[in-house]
Amino acid sequence: MYPELDTPALLIDLDVVRANVAEMAEVAATHGVALRPHIKTHKMPELARLQLEAGATGVTCAKLGEAEIMADAGIEDVLLAYPVWGEPKLRRLAALRERAKVRVSLDSPDVAAGLGRLGLRTGAPVEVLVEVDTGQHRLGRPPGRPTADLVAEIAATPGIDVVGLLTLAGHAYHARTPGHLAEISRREGTDLVATAELCARDGIDLPVISVGSTPTARHVAGVAGVTEIRPGTYIFNDTAMIRLGVATEETAASRVLTTVVARPSPDRVVFDAGTKCLSSDGAGTPGWIRAAGLPWLRMDFLNEEHAVARLDPEHARYGELPVGTRVQLIPGHACSVTNLFDVAHGVEGGRVTTELRVAARGAVR
Amino acid sequence: MYPELDTPALLIDLDVVRANVAEMAEVAATHGVALRPHIKTHKMPELARLQLEAGATGVTCAKLGEAEIMADAGIEDVLLAYPVWGEPKLRRLAALRERAKVRVSLDSPDVAAGLGRLGLRTGAPVEVLVEVDTGQHRLGRPPGRPTADLVAEIAATPGIDVVGLLTLAGHAYHARTPGHLAEISRREGTDLVATAELCARDGIDLPVISVGSTPTARHVAGVAGVTEIRPGTYIFNDTAMIRLGVATEETAASRVLTTVVARPSPDRVVFDAGTKCLSSDGAGTPGWIRAAGLPWLRMDFLNEEHAVARLDPEHARYGELPVGTRVQLIPGHACSVTNLFDVAHGVEGGRVTTELRVAARGAVR
Repeated sequence: MYPELDTPALLIDLDVVRANVAEMAEVAATHGVALRPHIKTHKMPELARLQLEAGATGVTCAKLGEAEIMADAGIEDVLLAYPVWGEPKLRRLAALRERAKVRVSLDSPDVAAGLGRLGLRTGAPVEVLVEVDTGQHRLGRPPGRPTADLVAEIAATPGIDVVGLLTLAGHAYHARTPGHLAEISRREGTDLVATAELCARDGIDLPVISVGSTPTARHVAGVAGVTEIRPGTYIFNDTAMIRLGVATEETAASRVLTTVVARPSPDRVVFDAGTKCLSSDGAGTPGWIRAAGLPWLRMDFLNEEHAVARLDPEHARYGELPVGTRVQLIPGHACSVTNLFDVAHGVEGGRVTTELRVAARGAVR
Repeated sequence: MYPELDTPALLIDLDVVRANVAEMAEVAATHGVALRPHIKTHKMPELARLQLEAGATGVTCAKLGEAEIMADAGIEDVLLAYPVWGEPKLRRLAALRERAKVRVSLDSPDVAAGLGRLGLRTGAPVEVLVEVDTGQHRLGRPPGRPTADLVAEIAATPGIDVVGLLTLAGHAYHARTPGHLAEISRREGTDLVATAELCARDGIDLPVISVGSTPTARHVAGVAGVTEIRPGTYIFNDTAMIRLGVATEETAASRVLTTVVARPSPDRVVFDAGTKCLSSDGAGTPGWIRAAGLPWLRMDFLNEEHAVARLDPEHARYGELPVGTRVQLIPGHACSVTNLFDVAHGVEGGRVTTELRVAARGAVR
């Protein structure tokens, strides 16, 4: 299996990527909403371009460093879904605005004040989306009056133009059943739409209602009033998406190619990739790392350079998966895994055809 | 706090590093054992050299890529504590052996066979340590007869010279009490020494008994018959070491400098560093991420770019830690955090004095 590569190595199945990209573009088109994928999953301008060519209206980034790399590659429409604070970052944002259309999300008058100064200095108001807490309890105030009041306060900031509301229903990752996931997804949309109506009654029109993650996108895209979805993980998928029922092993495009380096007991197999390749995201959740095509292998634990797995009793013999066997591990969280590699290997038709640089790896600022 | 740096940024307190290095060198000297620190914690040749200057006899690496970078910096004595398998890696090992003294650990005749071919080809037997499972259930067979039989089999491999036994008592990280930690540590040493005696009765002399991690090092160094300790984390420490009672906030040298970017509610604070800077290692363990000097702040959860914390009721007011406040977060696992940054900033006397490149970051092969 891929003898031209030494292990561990990150594989990206580009056939699967293209199908995943087309499917989500179709979801957006069917419901008449804009698709603005989060590039944190792939961190590669080539794949962002693939998404744009399939109909995405722009990209979402978390950090300025990611947005700068996308702009370097000629991508001209960026939502920076992160509160930008402090002079060094405001200077970088000013430079970025000279070569791309940039909107920023935020949840406080403090962050709005800094952005407003930038808007006044440059003579072009900074367009912002106000983040709403629809249940994850990360950023934002609750929907309804608390957010409407915040929107009014931010809208009164000189140099700021509030253009919409934004949320991430991150708690959807912990949905217990498909019904629960659908309920969280719909609430994500209806909460924002109701809040925007409140703002409209306050005299503030908010044309952008931006929601969605990979788990919630297919449900929330159909909520009346939603204008934009921002899924990220769908391009690669991972075991978290498989567990939530929105992906399968076949649609999981990113895998870590590993080699068995030890068989210390009949039921124990050790692979040459640990958290340094797979991260600890999701550890402890049953099946958080899967071995492609080997349902009788159960991941036990990861250390930095080792993945230790157990074989079901009927496969627990030394002859099974001997030292040197290659296995593809499906990550628990695709985005974190991409961030651990400088280079990924693109696979097409079952063969390695291209090397992909993870251009925005490590862009933490 | 460090206005010359934008956040998030990795800080390394070099005053604390020097004290930590000196203390562990003293532990080894007191007990008359060799100290061979694992460089996975810092991944920097400069800090490896600091350890060697303080009396370490060589370094431990997990992957060939790490060992190559250490050799590039003139470090000439390396234990590669990982089973090296496959032709590409054996070719790299051959090249490495031309510029450094290299020993390799392993736990199978399969891996020994490959190394033996290399030993025969180059006319210099490969010196190996056989790994023993003292309770972590990762690599190795149990101590006693199972390992003694394995040693005999590997020692019979042409081109191989078995020079010792090696273990990592990784289960010590889960010790429940200081007494439990001490017990695991002593067992780590006595199990190996007893196994080596069995091998001696079989006619195989094993001069090297290599044990130890940061949690167990101070206990196991004193076990009669132990010849070498291999702690890694002690140079930086982290909250896992604090929890185990072998470090304090004052001896934790690596911190992520962050900025408060949101205060969505009186009791909630959001920092601009998430798992992309701090990893998910240890997540879920109470206090797995600490805010230096702020015991009334409790980390709630991390996402990729956010750390979400709660304030104790008596500090739960908007005036506390407003947007823009800088805070140092102490990682749950120092080694994984180093691997997430290209560059760290060395601090001396409370001032940033140097930039340190994480030379071996991402060396997964």
